[in-house]
Amino acid sequence: MACYKLHYFAVRGRGELIRMLFILAKVDFQDIRVNEGGVDEWEEYRHGTPTGELPFLEVDGKQLTQSLTIARYLARKFGLAGDTNWEQALVEQIVDTCDDLRAENAKIIHERDESKLKYLKSKMTEEVLPKFQNRLTRFLQQHGDRYFVGSKITLADLAVHEVFTTFLQNDPSILDEHNSLTEHRRLVEQHPNLREYILNRPYSVV
Amino acid sequence: MACYKLHYFAVRGRGELIRMLFILAKVDFQDIRVNEGGVDEWEEYRHGTPTGELPFLEVDGKQLTQSLTIARYLARKFGLAGDTNWEQALVEQIVDTCDDLRAENAKIIHERDESKLKYLKSKMTEEVLPKFQNRLTRFLQQHGDRYFVGSKITLADLAVHEVFTTFLQNDPSILDEHNSLTEHRRLVEQHPNLREYILNRPYSVV
Repeated sequence: MACYKLHYFAVRGRGELIRMLFILAKVDFQDIRVNEGGVDEWEEYRHGTPTGELPFLEVDGKQLTQSLTIARYLARKFGLAGDTNWEQALVEQIVDTCDDLRAENAKIIHERDESKLKYLKSKMTEEVLPKFQNRLTRFLQQHGDRYFVGSKITLADLAVHEVFTTFLQNDPSILDEHNSLTEHRRLVEQHPNLREYILNRPYSVV
Repeated sequence: MACYKLHYFAVRGRGELIRMLFILAKVDFQDIRVNEGGVDEWEEYRHGTPTGELPFLEVDGKQLTQSLTIARYLARKFGLAGDTNWEQALVEQIVDTCDDLRAENAKIIHERDESKLKYLKSKMTEEVLPKFQNRLTRFLQQHGDRYFVGSKITLADLAVHEVFTTFLQNDPSILDEHNSLTEHRRLVEQHPNLREYILNRPYSVV
């Protein structure tokens, strides 16, 4: 069995999808959580990282950067990436769609200008979030299964769950009128390998 | 042989990496270039697209969105994605790194505020571009081959070539002090399958 070490900050952020893959696959990993708030600690830590950024993964000492690259690599290894090349593409299409929504939300988190922030927030509520909710609903309904791709859980299902977590923390009603997405979320949360983890993980703003 | 149709605007943008894959693999495809400037044409076209955005790919009538998802799908199909799961991860690491640089540049292209634009441009020249140049140089040198991953050309090499094209159009000197990247660029441009295409493709600002 390979020795995995995940280096990331003590938040969900871009690391949580990777953590959820390990939990779902029941594969041991070292979940190294760097204290971003402790500036001295991070600055020192940073020098030992491949690019000065997190997350990165060590696999038997070999280093890999880029959160989604890491997630896809592990998903392939754990049989959670889709069973054919086409299924794999469909999984990645969902993952990339979720990442686009995450990136839209990151704009809000990093905006410091009050009036621009107000504009971005209202655009998110009225335009961006509904667009992505509808798009993901369509992908799910076109597929016609409880999961996004194939007949079992994949990286795609984890990505959809993870991207809505931050939004739901801010407004628990955002999926109320999206029954397929609500049911899908419940399905992921009731997965026997994930249930305990999702219930008990530490709260994280992002 | 599958029937491929690539739908994208008449620019390089997020479609060119996909086009280069077809050219490199010598696989026929329909290169459908939508006229973005012709607002009426685009608005009409848009209704027939899966998400209202481009690019998307049709494979025997089945639709796939997300530019990098499409690129990775085709690269796997054409044997240009890396030979093992780990090699595939290394290829994707490079592709995602190039996409981060593309995204940084897109911020400049979309900025309308004069003073912010000035700030972003100087940050690009002094900080962002050198960071990515050094990062990619390190990946290339660590690997120790002429190509980024393995001993033959992959999607990673195309991604690096493509991301620097826009920068080089604006300032042909940006790789002058980066010998490994310059040599690598020449290698891609001299590939017998790519040479003619790169020399003769229409000029595109992005």
